[in-house]
Amino acid sequence: MKVHILTIGDEILIGQIVDTNAAWMSRQLNLRGAQVIGKSSVGDDFTGIQKALKKAISEADVVLITGGLGPTKDDITKKALADFFGVEQVFHEATWERIQKLFKRWGRGTTPAHRDQCFMPANAELLHNKMGTAPGMWFEHQEKIAVSMPGVPYEMEYLMEHEVLPRLVAHFPGSPIAHRTIQTVGEGESRLAARIEDFEEQLPQHIKLAYLPNLGKVRLRLTGTGSDQEALELEIEKKALELEALIPDLVFGREDDQLEAVIGRMLLANHLTLGTAESCTGGLIAHRITTIPGSSAYFMGSVVSYSNEMKQHLLGVRPETLEDHGAVSEQTVQEMVKGAVKRLGVDIAVAVSGIAGPGGGTPEKPVGTVWIAVGNSNTIKTEKWQIGTDRMKNIEYSAVQALNLVRRFVGGALPECTGQVGV
Amino acid sequence: MKVHILTIGDEILIGQIVDTNAAWMSRQLNLRGAQVIGKSSVGDDFTGIQKALKKAISEADVVLITGGLGPTKDDITKKALADFFGVEQVFHEATWERIQKLFKRWGRGTTPAHRDQCFMPANAELLHNKMGTAPGMWFEHQEKIAVSMPGVPYEMEYLMEHEVLPRLVAHFPGSPIAHRTIQTVGEGESRLAARIEDFEEQLPQHIKLAYLPNLGKVRLRLTGTGSDQEALELEIEKKALELEALIPDLVFGREDDQLEAVIGRMLLANHLTLGTAESCTGGLIAHRITTIPGSSAYFMGSVVSYSNEMKQHLLGVRPETLEDHGAVSEQTVQEMVKGAVKRLGVDIAVAVSGIAGPGGGTPEKPVGTVWIAVGNSNTIKTEKWQIGTDRMKNIEYSAVQALNLVRRFVGGALPECTGQVGV
Repeated sequence: MKVHILTIGDEILIGQIVDTNAAWMSRQLNLRGAQVIGKSSVGDDFTGIQKALKKAISEADVVLITGGLGPTKDDITKKALADFFGVEQVFHEATWERIQKLFKRWGRGTTPAHRDQCFMPANAELLHNKMGTAPGMWFEHQEKIAVSMPGVPYEMEYLMEHEVLPRLVAHFPGSPIAHRTIQTVGEGESRLAARIEDFEEQLPQHIKLAYLPNLGKVRLRLTGTGSDQEALELEIEKKALELEALIPDLVFGREDDQLEAVIGRMLLANHLTLGTAESCTGGLIAHRITTIPGSSAYFMGSVVSYSNEMKQHLLGVRPETLEDHGAVSEQTVQEMVKGAVKRLGVDIAVAVSGIAGPGGGTPEKPVGTVWIAVGNSNTIKTEKWQIGTDRMKNIEYSAVQALNLVRRFVGGALPECTGQVGV
Repeated sequence: MKVHILTIGDEILIGQIVDTNAAWMSRQLNLRGAQVIGKSSVGDDFTGIQKALKKAISEADVVLITGGLGPTKDDITKKALADFFGVEQVFHEATWERIQKLFKRWGRGTTPAHRDQCFMPANAELLHNKMGTAPGMWFEHQEKIAVSMPGVPYEMEYLMEHEVLPRLVAHFPGSPIAHRTIQTVGEGESRLAARIEDFEEQLPQHIKLAYLPNLGKVRLRLTGTGSDQEALELEIEKKALELEALIPDLVFGREDDQLEAVIGRMLLANHLTLGTAESCTGGLIAHRITTIPGSSAYFMGSVVSYSNEMKQHLLGVRPETLEDHGAVSEQTVQEMVKGAVKRLGVDIAVAVSGIAGPGGGTPEKPVGTVWIAVGNSNTIKTEKWQIGTDRMKNIEYSAVQALNLVRRFVGGALPECTGQVGV
């Protein structure tokens, strides 16, 4: 299955947005054995869209189109599509009823622009878009397939996962391919690579290993090709287990497992509750944990103590501690954990205090210095990290390491964890 | 000057990297009056590169190519270029000497692949790349221009700024173009469009308006073309001011302004401090606020009260309130604001309580029901939102609306804001 990705929108051509959709779509297609042979972007321009569509459909089996849909007037994609396929646009009563119902539920009125949204090229099969008002459109044309989706990432992702990818896979049953993704946290790409060097060298020709690093986490993806799906699945699973056995301390999950969800399951299984006390991470750890549905069963809450006063009043950090050691110190994060366990009434708490930057650094504690502590009413473990100079990277990296510390604490795997470590 | 951007590399087609180069280049070209008419990406593939180049050069005056150069794979791109222009490759002694010198300085040896890098299409004018080993290549061909650059972002950016853009501007003393982006929050795309319909219809032909929506925020972009840059800038600024005057309640900034940063500046200017009391947003509002450098000057912290116990113990919400009205109620968020102002010791607090889903909904309070309150020690304003069924969307939308409520409260623009509104 050869795929071309076509992105429509002036905002892409003037560089106002970075096209993250195309990369996401490519990854998903790749996992399913499809080959993306090209990508292109055009503006909200009738002729440009038609030319791009013509070239794309002449080279690929499938053209996936995002963007250029929406209730405002800069929308001409549907006109270009209808004209390209040589069909009229027809009014979809069911879509109009759905939009009206949605707006009624939201307590708002519709506008004529919303009604115009319900005209679609006559040959379009509509794909239900739970995340927004504009449905996806599936076209079959001279043995080729074209699909039009909104450009809003979560709408596109919903449509791809629930409608487009399953249909494409059914339409193009490809040659056997198998993937295993192993999720790791705690080592950077190159140190991780050094630990599994022998394994990688001994992989057979038809199995490949890819590293997908992302801020303290690295996904290891094994991809195998073969002639028999069942044998291939067995072989690649065996390799995945071998790989996991080499780095048990770093592996937290498989495939799309999220670190936050894994921690949630560990807490639930052990009947433990969690709270956070955050300074430089500013609430990001709590946010990450609460993205998981059902997290209220084990997550009680957080104190984001951005000021020293809040560290004292809400967490009971002693003024002497702040005075003697500073807010970014092992002693302070230890007292933050103690205070959080007691005042949030939780079994386990994790605390972070650091200098995110760009200001606030000193020669002894430069920007990127971060202390993390995790503990319960008996034990507290700490780690010191020296991250970097970029504020967002410091915040996000700290949150990932704090979550990993919780994972290791709950899993009972923290013998070595006290004192100082580095990135 | 019409430009096409062509990106080469398998890593883009499998989605392993997000193509940020294209957006950066587009912005720079736009600022200099060039019009990017299309973008495309192909793999490291001889035929694919040639086809894409042929189409691009037939439509545009200038084709800017990134990627496909480097010691491992650059032969394909350069071969395709040489073949396309009908020339041989020639060895560049000066480049080879420079590479050898660089490697000597780094204390490393060169490989045969490094020497192969020094073969270039005979018609290439080399552009000095201070940031890496592969030079840029400038081609003039039948009144069209093609430029090949490495894909590494800082190498491409260096070449663009110091070599490519100055040459292009000299080559095409272009026609003027001007942009203004107005940032809005608080109305969806279609209702916003209805409010500025007359303005949009009366825009002259040479000025266009585009809507760029993103979860409760909509950027409005005016783009004008003309013959005189100064007159055009004046005209488009006048239109931008007219547009802003139509929706003063929704406008929070211009160009790349962030809502969190705007709120920060308002708080600083008014010598006010802020705290948050978050239930369903789980710390996201605090996280957003603290992404801004220097936010510790006005942001004191947050209580993320995910459990009812924390709402009582840390924010002083009364048990009767929770019992009589529930955690997701106007009364509860009002008491959360009161508690936060007092216990966090802040001038202004914002509180959110809602049902993010997927579980927890009831017929009276379905998933997506969110109460938001903002206030100080005297006044509290509330809003009720009915968002949707998707957990992440509910969380992110609530955070944006809460930030917007803070903006309106600090700006003194909340006369109408009590009771119930919808998305």
